[in-house]
Amino acid sequence: MNYGLAARVLGNLLLIEAALLAIPLSISLWYQEKSSILGFLIAMLIMGLVGLVLSNIPTSNKRLKTREAFLIVALGWFATSFFGALPFVFSGNIPNLIDAFFETVSGLTTTGATLLPNVEALSKGLLFWRSFTHWLGGMGILVLTLAILPTVGVGGFQIFKAESPGPTPDKLTPRIAATTKILYTVYLVMTGLQIALFYGAGLNLFESLVFAFGSVGTGGFSIYNDSFARFSNNSVLVIIMSLFMIVSGINFSLYYDLWKKRWKQVLNNSELRLYLSIIAISVLAISLNLYGRVYVGWGETAKQALFQVSSIITTSGFSTVDFDQWPTFSKGILFALMFVGGSAGSTAGGIKVIRLLVAGKVVKREVSKALHPQLASPITIDGRIVAPEIVSGVASFYFLYFAVFIIGSLLISLEGLDLVSSMSAVATTLGNIGPGLGAVGPTNTFAQFSSLSKLFFSLLMLLGRLELFTLAVFVTSSFWKE
Amino acid sequence: MNYGLAARVLGNLLLIEAALLAIPLSISLWYQEKSSILGFLIAMLIMGLVGLVLSNIPTSNKRLKTREAFLIVALGWFATSFFGALPFVFSGNIPNLIDAFFETVSGLTTTGATLLPNVEALSKGLLFWRSFTHWLGGMGILVLTLAILPTVGVGGFQIFKAESPGPTPDKLTPRIAATTKILYTVYLVMTGLQIALFYGAGLNLFESLVFAFGSVGTGGFSIYNDSFARFSNNSVLVIIMSLFMIVSGINFSLYYDLWKKRWKQVLNNSELRLYLSIIAISVLAISLNLYGRVYVGWGETAKQALFQVSSIITTSGFSTVDFDQWPTFSKGILFALMFVGGSAGSTAGGIKVIRLLVAGKVVKREVSKALHPQLASPITIDGRIVAPEIVSGVASFYFLYFAVFIIGSLLISLEGLDLVSSMSAVATTLGNIGPGLGAVGPTNTFAQFSSLSKLFFSLLMLLGRLELFTLAVFVTSSFWKE
Repeated sequence: MNYGLAARVLGNLLLIEAALLAIPLSISLWYQEKSSILGFLIAMLIMGLVGLVLSNIPTSNKRLKTREAFLIVALGWFATSFFGALPFVFSGNIPNLIDAFFETVSGLTTTGATLLPNVEALSKGLLFWRSFTHWLGGMGILVLTLAILPTVGVGGFQIFKAESPGPTPDKLTPRIAATTKILYTVYLVMTGLQIALFYGAGLNLFESLVFAFGSVGTGGFSIYNDSFARFSNNSVLVIIMSLFMIVSGINFSLYYDLWKKRWKQVLNNSELRLYLSIIAISVLAISLNLYGRVYVGWGETAKQALFQVSSIITTSGFSTVDFDQWPTFSKGILFALMFVGGSAGSTAGGIKVIRLLVAGKVVKREVSKALHPQLASPITIDGRIVAPEIVSGVASFYFLYFAVFIIGSLLISLEGLDLVSSMSAVATTLGNIGPGLGAVGPTNTFAQFSSLSKLFFSLLMLLGRLELFTLAVFVTSSFWKE
Repeated sequence: MNYGLAARVLGNLLLIEAALLAIPLSISLWYQEKSSILGFLIAMLIMGLVGLVLSNIPTSNKRLKTREAFLIVALGWFATSFFGALPFVFSGNIPNLIDAFFETVSGLTTTGATLLPNVEALSKGLLFWRSFTHWLGGMGILVLTLAILPTVGVGGFQIFKAESPGPTPDKLTPRIAATTKILYTVYLVMTGLQIALFYGAGLNLFESLVFAFGSVGTGGFSIYNDSFARFSNNSVLVIIMSLFMIVSGINFSLYYDLWKKRWKQVLNNSELRLYLSIIAISVLAISLNLYGRVYVGWGETAKQALFQVSSIITTSGFSTVDFDQWPTFSKGILFALMFVGGSAGSTAGGIKVIRLLVAGKVVKREVSKALHPQLASPITIDGRIVAPEIVSGVASFYFLYFAVFIIGSLLISLEGLDLVSSMSAVATTLGNIGPGLGAVGPTNTFAQFSSLSKLFFSLLMLLGRLELFTLAVFVTSSFWKE
């Protein structure tokens, strides 16, 4: 194992994170939040020192092998979460390190599950940092899933790209760099656009910034205790937020196609169509269930249904109402959407719509094989054949996802929760959503859990965010054998 | 479509069923149950007439094609359920036809879900018939899964056979016949043995018969309102029942191997090992959870855990206690076991342990592929390679199973149930178990549902019993095209 190289990359990552802290620091300076200023400075100092030491570790070999790549990705997310938690601790805003770690993992993985019953007590600088972690994490996951994972042939990761958003040179590194540059551009444009729209719709600048971070990163952290509920009557705002969450749950390489005016390719994209169909059907079904029972008027009903469906399927986790009070049918649809998740190659979590598409095609082929065993037609998506190894990779992802979900739910139930609370707590962290049902519903937080469970939830968030297999390799003995 | 041939087979099936009704009829004669005698006679008359008409429909072509086979299997289970329900209706014991149909489907699919709050009010003859349907259905499913389905290359059905229990001649029909004969023998021996043991442990002859039918068929119908709870203090009886349920959930072709003294083959069978391991771990985990909290003493705790675990994983559904009152952790394990089910090629339902084994191997291979992409090792079970088509078939089974489970749970939740009750009601019928949790827990029945839901549950029981794909073909347009 080339630990030297891994240390260098990690060191650079921490130096970047330290530099990025200058932004929330300046906000704390503006608002004269003394303890937060101190917290940021101490954290930056530690990060800077550790980063400098690590990035200067000498390494003879500069070739990155598969195992080092896994190590860097995993350690990178752990380390940025750990060090990113320090401002919360040193400012005294979240004095407990485990709590601060949970909150930062939740931020960087764009989950948005919180253990702060009174988030409004945080300083402006830390509220900004907390939401900014969504934005940074969202960017990180785009690079990981669209630029890096497709080069690894595992878990069906190849299907993440509708088509390569960048050029296809022979060497891996320039390709990753080019793809990353395109992604940054799209991401920045989308964020800027949303900030402008939010501001135009009546939010102040600070609110516009943090809610844009939370939605473009499909995170879900709010700066208010009632999430997005206080804006529930501002229909324009609710609809802007819903649409931007939906837009953030679409494969980002499609925006590159749009830019290149490949209209047909975008319009005929199967994953996009299925994604939008699921949203439309869910909104319709929930509206029919709620109309006249929970809300008066079709407009109000559809608006609330649209917001909650968009929020859950994109794994954002904002809420305008306590959907835990909805009838079982509507609640059940939201629970199912927690597993669906957004499109591959977006900032959304969950199993991803493309894998649902593959599953549907596999079932369809199997049924027709029952009648015509001789006709073994290959599975195709958008005209291209899905290789058997990809099908097997997708299946393995489902299996591992549900195995983690079931074992996780059982372990969490030992905290004394009921079945729905246990299951939704695990589904919502593993799927990087935020709120669940019952004891972890939209009006509750994760403060009720033991430190051990908080660490376990942090692991689940990372597992989900890193597409399981990126972390699963560490439990194999062959990983550690030289 | 060769409807003539299908009609002939169906007609013969109904004639056999009419003849079998002579057994419960003779019991009603012995106990002088007038209305039941009348009910049996009318039902036998109708079945006999319909059977005679159908079996004499002329058919020119005697070759059975795939589509006819599907039609016969599906119609066979529907028709025997429908006509088997008639004695309940005509005797006045279950006057509502839909209720009687639900109860008979539940019997023949070896589910054991009941909608009778007071089963003890039934006549002896009908109680016998009700439990006898478990025994007949269990035999039916053994023939279907071990002799017929493996010849169809769908849903991973080929893996049902650990090894062909019969000879391997060139022609299909003699092979099916030979396999069937072996299965009958094993089934009869096991039933006889259990009747003798039950009788020896203190049950009367009638009880011994019906409980043997219910356990060897992994059905779960009791003749008492409290299922098996009244025998809870008879440890010998509880353990005999537990062991026989476990034995009935093992692939029956292994008993043929035992008979042929292939000891090594049986001992090293991976599915058997995994099945027994899951039982052992579940019993241990539940015992640790319940000891001192729900039960006093390790013996009592382990006994109750063993009984309930055996009952659920084998999809029998008998209960000695109201496990819905157990802590979430234990309840959650039982809920998870509802999906696992017994071994393939047994009378048990559920997803089946062999498919879990394949899933585990697929995940393991995928993780090692992440580290060594060049090493594409094939998946093997018991030394034999599992072809990619089988992996794809197994995956498609999971996908379809969970799709039916999720959509079914949502639809049933419209009855006004909570999430856990809705989900477990669907899981327990689709998995052919019997009791669920909450509103359909061991102390409740399915009487609370609307007629539409009762028919829907009947469909779920048949879907689960017929391994989904056997019925899924009927919704394809190509099935109905000539």
